[in-house]
Amino acid sequence: MRAVDPDKVETPIGYVDLQRVRSNAKKIASYCKEHGLNWRPHIKTHKSREIARLQIDAGATGITVATLREAEVMSTVTEDLLLAYPPVGDLKLKRLIQLPHELDLKVALDSAQVLKPLAAACASAERQVGILIERDVGLGRVGVQRVEDVIQLADLAQELDGVDFRGIMFYPGQIRMAEVDQDAHVREVAALVEEMTVALAKAGFVPDIVSGGSTPTLWRSHNYSGITEIRSGSSVFFDLEALRVGVASHDDLAYTVLATVVSTAVHGGAVVDAGSKALSKEVRSAEGDYGVLFDRAEVTVKTLNEEHGVLDLSRTDWEPRIGDQVRIIPNHVCVSVNLQDSLLAQDGDTHVMLNLEGKGRSLWVEESLLNPH
Amino acid sequence: MRAVDPDKVETPIGYVDLQRVRSNAKKIASYCKEHGLNWRPHIKTHKSREIARLQIDAGATGITVATLREAEVMSTVTEDLLLAYPPVGDLKLKRLIQLPHELDLKVALDSAQVLKPLAAACASAERQVGILIERDVGLGRVGVQRVEDVIQLADLAQELDGVDFRGIMFYPGQIRMAEVDQDAHVREVAALVEEMTVALAKAGFVPDIVSGGSTPTLWRSHNYSGITEIRSGSSVFFDLEALRVGVASHDDLAYTVLATVVSTAVHGGAVVDAGSKALSKEVRSAEGDYGVLFDRAEVTVKTLNEEHGVLDLSRTDWEPRIGDQVRIIPNHVCVSVNLQDSLLAQDGDTHVMLNLEGKGRSLWVEESLLNPH
Repeated sequence: MRAVDPDKVETPIGYVDLQRVRSNAKKIASYCKEHGLNWRPHIKTHKSREIARLQIDAGATGITVATLREAEVMSTVTEDLLLAYPPVGDLKLKRLIQLPHELDLKVALDSAQVLKPLAAACASAERQVGILIERDVGLGRVGVQRVEDVIQLADLAQELDGVDFRGIMFYPGQIRMAEVDQDAHVREVAALVEEMTVALAKAGFVPDIVSGGSTPTLWRSHNYSGITEIRSGSSVFFDLEALRVGVASHDDLAYTVLATVVSTAVHGGAVVDAGSKALSKEVRSAEGDYGVLFDRAEVTVKTLNEEHGVLDLSRTDWEPRIGDQVRIIPNHVCVSVNLQDSLLAQDGDTHVMLNLEGKGRSLWVEESLLNPH
Repeated sequence: MRAVDPDKVETPIGYVDLQRVRSNAKKIASYCKEHGLNWRPHIKTHKSREIARLQIDAGATGITVATLREAEVMSTVTEDLLLAYPPVGDLKLKRLIQLPHELDLKVALDSAQVLKPLAAACASAERQVGILIERDVGLGRVGVQRVEDVIQLADLAQELDGVDFRGIMFYPGQIRMAEVDQDAHVREVAALVEEMTVALAKAGFVPDIVSGGSTPTLWRSHNYSGITEIRSGSSVFFDLEALRVGVASHDDLAYTVLATVVSTAVHGGAVVDAGSKALSKEVRSAEGDYGVLFDRAEVTVKTLNEEHGVLDLSRTDWEPRIGDQVRIIPNHVCVSVNLQDSLLAQDGDTHVMLNLEGKGRSLWVEESLLNPH
């Protein structure tokens, strides 16, 4: 990490409170310990090796990634990696088999069309990769539909060289309502997970890993019976959605976008330099807004253009002036971090810059290799 | 540009048809010539020096940028640059005055609070920067509200050392309805523009530049009386919004996102590897979708997560298979390009990779300076 004078950092930029990141990590690790769960944070949220190391120091047992770039970067931080995304095509498989051989690499997938070429690539590279079969538990995105399909893919993984059946994966991403209204939905998912583990046991499979969890259902993860690990991503920082769902409090928010007021010419609004290229224009609630000021909950971001964010001043007596800095809680933290060059992080009295090594999709080559001197 | 074998390029990636880019540039240049307008494309859409050069070769008389990074990059391509965004704060002013002195640099702004420090910085650096006063013509984002404020700022610019009053700027960004329904709205904006030029003339100002235009109103730009130049950005590529507004036809679309089918496990859908981190999750129409397949208009992107795009197959007899490649027309091209590492561009029989040098906000240092050998 590079130490930095925060007054020498231009806005807009993602701003991280490292003490809160550590506190969030500690809470999740404690929760997992209490319920006998492993914690494998999804680093798509932060894409930073420094923060991944912090999570591992706090008790994370491995790391989850979505892209091969993230896998390449995080293979320098952990030896226990889950690629929670189907790798399709020769180019991606070539990158995958070039990951360090000492890595305990697991890949989640939902089809024989992905499994077979993956197994062939691994076998020809003389390496073994673990397989998690993903089942759709209600989101309707990826994942096999029937428990029979889980068994069938587990059987196939068992048969093929280069891969080992290691377990199952699910993602209850449809559960985004307020925490107090989640009970019935969590029970539905839990029933589907149990159905899988029972059917697998009958078929002679004891899954080593049952990987689940999400940030909105974070503190109920133990209700998914049979679950062995959680992958929650945005809980490293939390965001406005997490606040509204109730899974985090204001004191847990560890990421905001630092922005500067650049215009107050239009009555009732003020324009800041954080637009959709810093916050992302993603609606996540009935409110229809794009963020809220960290220090003034009555001020929302009502419009986003690429480099303009328009603050709604109709419910505040604050009178912003050009040059004022504000901190914005984004709706969805993962897509906002992905828009930053790097992050400004506060750690008590000092500030550092965090690199986002996992950002982008190109092949990652460690900086120290590029600049060996 | 680096020549490349397209089969060696992973998805998702932005895919550009350079022949269509040239054809779009030619059409805009012809339109401008016909109506005696200058063309100063906004390069926030493409952020690429190669494409900026192509636009200049086609007849663009200068370039518009939004960020200092874009200004630094594009100062190597043109000597006629407009920063269409208020530069606020000492750090940004320091970068601004370090731009090449031979540059004919113009800055748009809407307040004395931006103008005064800018003038002071320019004066102390012994350089002159042109000033365009921005007026709000209905979007309600930035821009002074009254014609008196335009005059007042023009007066102030005239008085101050380091800056020269050069003209006015407006952006009719509220006009996004179908082209056939734009008449009354364009007339309203035209009346406001005329009011400004008349009032300025009375006050003894002859604006050298009246900068306006937008992509949705592209072919009506000559209806804004007194306008001298247009800045339209996304017309370099166009996008789904432009298609729906009617300002472009399918044959004009020069940018799509190349994606690969990774899952067909959920009935009625197919999942591609272009998610919100490749397309951006920005709703731009009543349809509520996030994109449409280039070759199959009946297939829309109905859901976007970070690395997942879910195609709606309910209106097609196409049966996608894992590994199939598709091309997606994004809702809003500017934010999609901003999410790419670089672009794959087809130019007849050859393919090249385009760098996006203007992407991000950090100080730009030309690659050839970093690697002089």
